[in-house]
Amino acid sequence: TINGQRLNDTLHQTCEFGAAHRWGAKATETGMARLALTDSDKAVRDWFVAEMTALGCDVKVDAMGNIFAVRAGENDGPPTAMGSHLDTQPTGGRYDGILGVMAAVEAMRTLHESGRKTKYPVAAIDWTNEEGARFPKSMHASSVWAGDITLADAHALADVTDDKVTTLSELQRIGYAGDVPCSWEANPLGAHFEIHIEQGPVLENAGQRVGIVRGGQAYKWFEIIIRGRDSHAGTTPMDCRADPLLTAAQFIVAASSIARAHGGLCTNGIFTAKPGSVNTIPNEVRFSLDIRHVEDGALAAIEAEIRARGEEITKTGYKVECSVEWKPLYANPAIRFHPACVAAVRAAALGNVAEEDTREIISGAGHDSCCTSKRVPTGMIFIPSKDGLSHNPEEYSTPEDCALGAQVLLDAVLIYDSQ
Amino acid sequence: TINGQRLNDTLHQTCEFGAAHRWGAKATETGMARLALTDSDKAVRDWFVAEMTALGCDVKVDAMGNIFAVRAGENDGPPTAMGSHLDTQPTGGRYDGILGVMAAVEAMRTLHESGRKTKYPVAAIDWTNEEGARFPKSMHASSVWAGDITLADAHALADVTDDKVTTLSELQRIGYAGDVPCSWEANPLGAHFEIHIEQGPVLENAGQRVGIVRGGQAYKWFEIIIRGRDSHAGTTPMDCRADPLLTAAQFIVAASSIARAHGGLCTNGIFTAKPGSVNTIPNEVRFSLDIRHVEDGALAAIEAEIRARGEEITKTGYKVECSVEWKPLYANPAIRFHPACVAAVRAAALGNVAEEDTREIISGAGHDSCCTSKRVPTGMIFIPSKDGLSHNPEEYSTPEDCALGAQVLLDAVLIYDSQ
Ligand SMILES: NC(=O)NCCC(=O)O
Ligand SMILES: NC(=O)NCCC(=O)O
Repeated sequence: TINGQRLNDTLHQTCEFGAAHRWGAKATETGMARLALTDSDKAVRDWFVAEMTALGCDVKVDAMGNIFAVRAGENDGPPTAMGSHLDTQPTGGRYDGILGVMAAVEAMRTLHESGRKTKYPVAAIDWTNEEGARFPKSMHASSVWAGDITLADAHALADVTDDKVTTLSELQRIGYAGDVPCSWEANPLGAHFEIHIEQGPVLENAGQRVGIVRGGQAYKWFEIIIRGRDSHAGTTPMDCRADPLLTAAQFIVAASSIARAHGGLCTNGIFTAKPGSVNTIPNEVRFSLDIRHVEDGALAAIEAEIRARGEEITKTGYKVECSVEWKPLYANPAIRFHPACVAAVRAAALGNVAEEDTREIISGAGHDSCCTSKRVPTGMIFIPSKDGLSHNPEEYSTPEDCALGAQVLLDAVLIYDSQ
Repeated sequence: TINGQRLNDTLHQTCEFGAAHRWGAKATETGMARLALTDSDKAVRDWFVAEMTALGCDVKVDAMGNIFAVRAGENDGPPTAMGSHLDTQPTGGRYDGILGVMAAVEAMRTLHESGRKTKYPVAAIDWTNEEGARFPKSMHASSVWAGDITLADAHALADVTDDKVTTLSELQRIGYAGDVPCSWEANPLGAHFEIHIEQGPVLENAGQRVGIVRGGQAYKWFEIIIRGRDSHAGTTPMDCRADPLLTAAQFIVAASSIARAHGGLCTNGIFTAKPGSVNTIPNEVRFSLDIRHVEDGALAAIEAEIRARGEEITKTGYKVECSVEWKPLYANPAIRFHPACVAAVRAAALGNVAEEDTREIISGAGHDSCCTSKRVPTGMIFIPSKDGLSHNPEEYSTPEDCALGAQVLLDAVLIYDSQ
């Protein structure tokens, strides 16, 4: 049995690395701003490496900075992993990703204390830049591990605010460009389990405590670049403008209603306009587009409709018109987890709570498990998020639910390992 | 008679201070990025002071960095001024403001060479931060001179990209925080004349060469701040969002069509979103709003309608809604220039071109003359802008039109002085 108090204490203690955005008076009432590969990310990584080493694990760092802490089993072979991420959004909370790694740490501590030998090795993993907030590809390093993107492309990916700072330069700067290959073939896993907060309102609204995750929805990220002509705000008639900011506003309104009409989601999180003067019509705006749907086909339809509307919007018939460029940033197909892992999660959940306290659920967010599932059997556990709120400093899950989730994680791993 | 060649040579030589955005192969085929109170602005100011001193002018710098170069007349008294500005937009051209100061320099050179004594003193003026591009108030320093805003407020105005850098700190840094009071009462002028490029398409489309400016349209600038709730792009249902970026897009589309319906203009030149992550709905966006109309009443109606629509747009009925805050940045009422100055400009124009080559015109842009006209008789001369383009590196007026404009400026000043 895991130690719930210790789990929660450790989670909040390590949130000292990168705590930000105080929203309440209690010590733990802050959010997090621990962007991938920053100094605070390095600090929590160093802590994780030391802690896992102290528990007798063999710790490896791969070329994307992923940290694998492996505890030997009775037999050699690829480990059954418990992974998630320690990086956060710029206005992130204390649970997204962090709970998954801390639950793995607590599971390792529990195995260590009980002296329990598993059939095969067990691993705790911290995956690099899951959020995609600083370097705009989510599940960035687990995508390389799964062979979805190349190491070279991943290393070259630049910080969203400064294109001279890359993933590789930051890995090197903080000392986490490891020499283990980042590859499911060269550094294999037997299975991957992850506990995560739901980040949405479904479990809370249903009054249920454990989500047995069946898969994740599809999503795509783009950088949209609209180019126009800079000109004077006071002397340029409305019909003589090629105004990329007005065009972007029309695009964003249209994209949102297209996604909504399909039952999907649409978000624009980053937006910049150049040259940035009150009385000059911009010459270029860039913004991010995140579209999601549970079905790959519907996502493709949303994208196609937005592309078509985007072209229409630029056709003003004026002498000079704007142009729209789409730069693909990231794509994640709809995912279905492995039946054996889903079954292990279900069995573990039912060992801890009644059936009516559980539900099968599709994840709205992407997770490192979506990447591992392309190569190895994978399963996930969700616990409720207060108000369905995430990517927000006030993100919250109860200590009891965190402890329950960690217990289900450990139990699922042991069930899977024993089969 | 002014020397047109020398005028154009001097204009382009001094554009070496701050040249940027090359668009053609010829030496002069670049735009400008000489933002107010930057090092390149200091360099051209130093040139202007040296040049005017060499012509025997008495050079004064006031508390806003305005430079007054005064040439004595037969009688003492407030000088008849020829003023404009040497600062530019970030993607500015070689003529906006610059032509007005260079024409004043050429006029001074011509007076100097001919040994002509005017009845009253004559001045050439460089007004600080006319553009409002770096510090977001246009005609910033001529507004202080006219008593429209206080020196303290003007000094405190911060750089649009860095709120720790203020107008005062930059004036001090470049050595242009002068000790002459910035005040029409303490440092009076007798009249103010300005030649400027039209920056719009009217003269070019009509095939006319000289605009006799009757006045300027009204405009207002605001910073609009929309606040919402940061949350997850993949797990937050569309109906649970308080998305300030989508709200801003709806606001901008609405504002543009409201302004258009009234025959006015609407521009959003600056836009920022926080925290700036692809998969986080922003919590705050800020953007500039520039609305214009030739009539004060219509401008007020545009503002009122946009305010009302802005409130409506936030009323989604969802559990959490966005809020809209309007921060006034600047307001310029509709201006009518002084009949005596308009008459002097007309007489000067008709001394150089046929009546059909001139037209009375209302300025779409604000000018330092709009501020001086509140306190002293003021007049302006426009020359055509190629393609009506301004606030763009490719802004262009022919050397012949520049020379003609400078001649009309000098003649208008002499006509006014002699009355
Ligand atoms: N769990 C999570 O917030 N992942 C970030 C990737 C996404 O945007 O869904
Ligand atoms: N002439 C000019 O571009 N002035 C800047 C002020 C304005 O925005 O109209």
